[in-house]
Amino acid sequence: MDIQKTSSLNEKAQEISSDGSFKRQGNRFTTPFGKHPGELPVEPNRYRLLWTPACPWAHRTVIVRNLLGLDNVINLGTASPLRPRIGRVDWEFSLDENGVDPVLGIQYMSEIYEKTDPDYSGRPTVPLMVDLHSNEAVNNDYFKLTNYLETAWKPLHKKDAPNLYPEHLRAEIDELNDIIFNDINNGVYKCGFAKSQEVYEEAFDQLFSRLDELEERLRDKRFLFGDYITDSDVRLYSTLVRFDAAYYTAFHTNRTLIREFPHLWGYVRDLYQTPGFGDTTDFDAIKKHYHVSITIFTDKEVMKILPKGPDLSGWNAPHNRESVSNSKEKFLKEAEEHRL
Amino acid sequence: MDIQKTSSLNEKAQEISSDGSFKRQGNRFTTPFGKHPGELPVEPNRYRLLWTPACPWAHRTVIVRNLLGLDNVINLGTASPLRPRIGRVDWEFSLDENGVDPVLGIQYMSEIYEKTDPDYSGRPTVPLMVDLHSNEAVNNDYFKLTNYLETAWKPLHKKDAPNLYPEHLRAEIDELNDIIFNDINNGVYKCGFAKSQEVYEEAFDQLFSRLDELEERLRDKRFLFGDYITDSDVRLYSTLVRFDAAYYTAFHTNRTLIREFPHLWGYVRDLYQTPGFGDTTDFDAIKKHYHVSITIFTDKEVMKILPKGPDLSGWNAPHNRESVSNSKEKFLKEAEEHRL
Repeated sequence: MDIQKTSSLNEKAQEISSDGSFKRQGNRFTTPFGKHPGELPVEPNRYRLLWTPACPWAHRTVIVRNLLGLDNVINLGTASPLRPRIGRVDWEFSLDENGVDPVLGIQYMSEIYEKTDPDYSGRPTVPLMVDLHSNEAVNNDYFKLTNYLETAWKPLHKKDAPNLYPEHLRAEIDELNDIIFNDINNGVYKCGFAKSQEVYEEAFDQLFSRLDELEERLRDKRFLFGDYITDSDVRLYSTLVRFDAAYYTAFHTNRTLIREFPHLWGYVRDLYQTPGFGDTTDFDAIKKHYHVSITIFTDKEVMKILPKGPDLSGWNAPHNRESVSNSKEKFLKEAEEHRL
Repeated sequence: MDIQKTSSLNEKAQEISSDGSFKRQGNRFTTPFGKHPGELPVEPNRYRLLWTPACPWAHRTVIVRNLLGLDNVINLGTASPLRPRIGRVDWEFSLDENGVDPVLGIQYMSEIYEKTDPDYSGRPTVPLMVDLHSNEAVNNDYFKLTNYLETAWKPLHKKDAPNLYPEHLRAEIDELNDIIFNDINNGVYKCGFAKSQEVYEEAFDQLFSRLDELEERLRDKRFLFGDYITDSDVRLYSTLVRFDAAYYTAFHTNRTLIREFPHLWGYVRDLYQTPGFGDTTDFDAIKKHYHVSITIFTDKEVMKILPKGPDLSGWNAPHNRESVSNSKEKFLKEAEEHRL
């Protein structure tokens, strides 16, 4: 790999608590989408979604966008997984011709944050929805963005789009999403960015105890809530798919690889092999970001090696997860067998 | 973990070739043990073997010493797995009372190197045999030391000591030892210390292609040369036992964990559960050394996390490797079945 100029720690210092734990910054732009005054109007081709395939928070948004057929009405700007060499945390449109986003004309993600809020001092993050009427940032709420796409954006869903957030399950999905966020999605970051051995070990135990729990949950359920994919599956996927290739080594989450959990490994490959998941998963970008380009605690020019592993050949192997699906046939057969 | 003052790269610069590959330094003290003039005399209680349980080159020597019952006639000085904070590469006797080796009275390994050779400018390494008559270093030949213990030291072996280096197999053992050295023992270091992506990937491919080969070899052989442990097994063990806990993450050797190779995993646990192997294996020391204390490419004070994984509970689990042993009974049974 190239020599990367990694930026100094200062940029993240504000997200490290006094006990050495990582506290993720809040979101700057949180106006919801909807029909009410003051809400962001839902319109085709009005917004540009900025992401990088490295980032799990942006990836979940793009998966939901694609699952629901919103890829036809929300266009996409893609930043490089490699941080720019400008001495601070940013994302760069270096994959685009001339190094600028062809629609917004910006080189760095920070430009759109600063244009919208000149006093913005946080990290410029993705996902970010940009209103193409004003060319300003309108929503970077990674936690709620998929829910907006699932609800407020329903009128623009494709025909037969899956219902990822069914009303009768919302309370349960929200509850599980909180757990997935705290212990898993952000849990791996708590491990990776911990500045004390003690808070690292706490986060590590919490992460794996939750993975053990979900491994059990998925023993006889094809997806987290049964036979159909929900918003929670998308959120869990975005961390699981990065785990063996990035977090296990780069974030010290090295108790067990995902491919060593029989049910989680079948489950994540089942999703990977579903359109919207695997086709938006870029292992090369993920590896480059976490191993070579993520901010580390040094400000020297550092030569970094991109790990060659893991072997990715298993991702398309048969997962046999249909066998735990409660399809109608299976249900009837079981009912008969158990004389229900 | 503690804040560690890691020393600058300069100390290892002389071991990095112009193509970015790691070339291990030669050994300074290579006089053989034997009966001939100029050779080191074999005598009980005359030598002190300096080691640290972190180091695979020293570990192999201690395993052979113990297997052969030489632990009664060669005493042992143990350095800490954590490098001292003195800005250069050394080993420190900080585990001993007052921080000095109780027999030699030294705080750092370098002291005995410099006492013996004031011009010594290499890394002070273990294993090191110190002659207690002169208190000077006499042999640090990690490659040949186990062979000396197996041959020249034979008169002092315990009763019924195993023959780790049988004459009729020596040529084959030597040949395999060269391969194990180049591709595996030193192969992991070539991955971990590579300063170019290209030489790293070469070393990575060589390492795993060799592990794949040995996995096949051990499919129907309990040990590398059949039913009995040889010097080659000791050499292979010293890298395999460190692999999942250290190299996989710290040295970027992340294609496959050893516990994911069915035969290698059974094999290494078989050895681990054999007296002389597991009882000289210190996972805590290994993890501390490779994750927290090994020289890295920075000279800043760096907070380092000690990874909590991997799960070590499997090391004592049944390995069932007896089933591939060609014991007499098994041989006779097979002979009968195959009408030999």
